[in-house]
Parts: sequence; structure tokens; C-alpha cells
Amino acid sequence: MATLNIKRNVFAENDRIAEILREHFAKNKTFVINIIGSPGCGKTTLLEKTIEHFKGKYKIYTLVGDVQTEEDAVRLREAGGDAKQIITGGACHLDARMIEKEFEESIPKSLDMLIIENVGNLVCPSSYDLGEDHKVVIVSVPEGEEKPLKYPSIFIRADLFILSKVDYLALGGFDKEKILANGKKVNPKIRELCLSSRSGEGMDEWFEWIEESIRNKKNS
Amino acid sequence: MATLNIKRNVFAENDRIAEILREHFAKNKTFVINIIGSPGCGKTTLLEKTIEHFKGKYKIYTLVGDVQTEEDAVRLREAGGDAKQIITGGACHLDARMIEKEFEESIPKSLDMLIIENVGNLVCPSSYDLGEDHKVVIVSVPEGEEKPLKYPSIFIRADLFILSKVDYLALGGFDKEKILANGKKVNPKIRELCLSSRSGEGMDEWFEWIEESIRNKKNS
Repeated sequence: MATLNIKRNVFAENDRIAEILREHFAKNKTFVINIIGSPGCGKTTLLEKTIEHFKGKYKIYTLVGDVQTEEDAVRLREAGGDAKQIITGGACHLDARMIEKEFEESIPKSLDMLIIENVGNLVCPSSYDLGEDHKVVIVSVPEGEEKPLKYPSIFIRADLFILSKVDYLALGGFDKEKILANGKKVNPKIRELCLSSRSGEGMDEWFEWIEESIRNKKNS
Repeated sequence: MATLNIKRNVFAENDRIAEILREHFAKNKTFVINIIGSPGCGKTTLLEKTIEHFKGKYKIYTLVGDVQTEEDAVRLREAGGDAKQIITGGACHLDARMIEKEFEESIPKSLDMLIIENVGNLVCPSSYDLGEDHKVVIVSVPEGEEKPLKYPSIFIRADLFILSKVDYLALGGFDKEKILANGKKVNPKIRELCLSSRSGEGMDEWFEWIEESIRNKKNS
């Protein structure tokens, strides 16, 4: 019971900070997404391609959460992006306080877009509001069709579901329509997008979604 | 500070129960593994094949942890196994108390092997001792070579590292030797096994590891 109350307080405090962040981002007209998916679902590769695509056009900054290693931020900087690693130590998710700290210390104030790549984990990060405009959930083809049903919490909270690594569909044994239907079953309003960072398939739709979202934010 | 102390108490209490479970399993000569990996790394498919292989030879019981759905236990029962789903609700891991409850209520006492399939998550489950003989970590080829470095906690605690879905190596773009080397870098004593439940490659070595472990447990 004590543990439950502490948990409730943790979430309430997180939500309070997230709202402050959301106000800052709204004032600065910065479009913010919080990307959540399992280890190895293709988050960082997708962001590399995204950074390369928008280089010179939009000012994008990326925060990358990981339990250990600087590797992802290094990869994104090599792709030409401006990126900062948040090493959580033991923590299996990012929380609003970590983003607030970066807002004070590292995040540039005049940004078109802030991308937060959460820790590779389909469970815990879904509970933490980071002040984002949208949560984006990624599941890759090899992970299997039933993932939306088994991890409903993130699908309920996300506005966009990316089915990644669709180049693996060529190997067979995966029912694309079934996973998309499962996504809609958990969240009928979720937008769905199929892509492969490796083959390039579907990437244009992703880039258009970002452009449109940045435009809407500027006009909001 | 209060939160930290509560966390320490949670782990201490978990370890206390895990030790009691370990004594029970030792008395009953039941070999116990705790399988940990990301969502979609191939845990349940591997267990289906394992249950089919040992059907009639060994008495195996499986506990399957998931945040939601009974699907995995249903699949394992369809494969001819005796399986019970533990739905954790929000929790991103199994803990010793959940196993203790099943030990009292559902787990048969005369077992050759108890398989615990943890919640799909490479972070949190690594901290909870469930009274097992071995933690087994699974990473699938599509997840990428750097996983042992990014999720060291489970690699430090596991005795066996299974690289799964090696049939995906045919698509290229993955360095098998690199991920195996990364595994050894984090834990030089870890045993490594490459297999595909789909193609059957490497499965014999996995079955032999189980047979040997069951024999060792009987003679312990």
C-alpha cells in the first residue's frame, strides 16, 4: 500500500514536470516525439536516416536514452545530427526530470524538432509523460504479430505505430495485416506506418508525417 | 533516499524468497531456468520446440510471464506442454513472490524441469532472482550486435547466451562473431549458443545442454 502510494506520487510528480516541459516546447514551437520500442526494433537506424534526410532543412536535436553506452548518440552525430546520450544507469525508462535537466543544460531553445529515443523497452517507458506531442511506438517484423495485444499500454498511449524492418517480410512467416489489425484493436485511432530503414520502403510517408507535424506546430 | 531504501528492501525480500524456492527445487531435484529476452526475440517459439522435443521423456512445466494475454501459455499447451500464464498486469518482470505463489498452487512437485519465461524485457527482469539454476538470455539476430554492451546487467547474471533466429543471417548485414565477442566481453564465462527454432539449426546443442543439466541436477 505504501509502495502503491509512492508509485502514484512518482507519476504525479513526473506529470507535473512534463506539463511544464510541454508549455516550454509550445512556446518555442518545438515539435517533440518520444519514440518507444524494444531493444533492436530499429529506433536508432530510423533516426540516422531521418537526420540525414532533414539535414540543412530543419533544426533537429536528439536525446537518446540507454541503460549503458554512448553508442547511439555517437551514431546519430556521425549521421550529422546534434545528439546527447542520457545514460540511465539502472533505470529502464526516461522520466520527465531527466528531460528537464537536458532542457536546462543541453537542448537548444530554437529547435524545429526534438526527438527523444527512449530506452529499449516496450513496457516501462509508456508510463512516463516526457512533455512530448506524440508517443511513437515501433515494432519490427521479426518481433511477431501479437505484440500490440501483449503490450497494450504503449499502444493505447501512442499516436503513431511504426511497423519497422518490413524488408524482413520477404522471408515469409509474418502476417502484416494481422499486426496492423491488432494495433487498431488496442487503439482504433492509432495511425499506422510500415517502413524499412534498410530498403527505404515507406520512408517517404514517415518524412511527410514529420514535415506536416512540424508545420502544424509552427502554426499552432 | 527513501525510494532507494525501499528498493533495497524489495530486492532483499525477493532474494530471501528466491533462496527458499531454490532449496525446494534442490530437494525436488528440479532443474530451473529463467529465460529473459526482448519482446519477439523468440522465447515462446523456442519453448514450443523444446516441449515437443522432450515430450514423454521429461516432465517439464512452464510458467510464462506477460503483462497481458494468455496467448503464450495457450501456445505451449498446444505444443503438448503443461503451462501456466502469469499475467503481471503492469509489472515489467516476474518476482520471486509470484513464483512462490505458483509453487504453492500450480507447480507439480515431481518435475524434471521448470522453465520460467520472463516478461519480454531485457532490463528489469535481470534484477530479480527467481530461485533458478541458470538465467538464460536470448537476443535475436535482427536486434543487432551491440545488445550485450547496452544491456550488460542480464549478460553479467546469465550463464547461457542464446543468439536466436540465425536463419535471418542469410539476409546479411549482421556480424555474428561481433555479438558473440560482445557477450564474452561483458561476461567472459558465459556459454554461447546460436540457433534457429524455425530452421532447426543449432537446436541439438540446446537440447543437449538441457539433458546434461537435468542429469547434473538429478545427481546433485
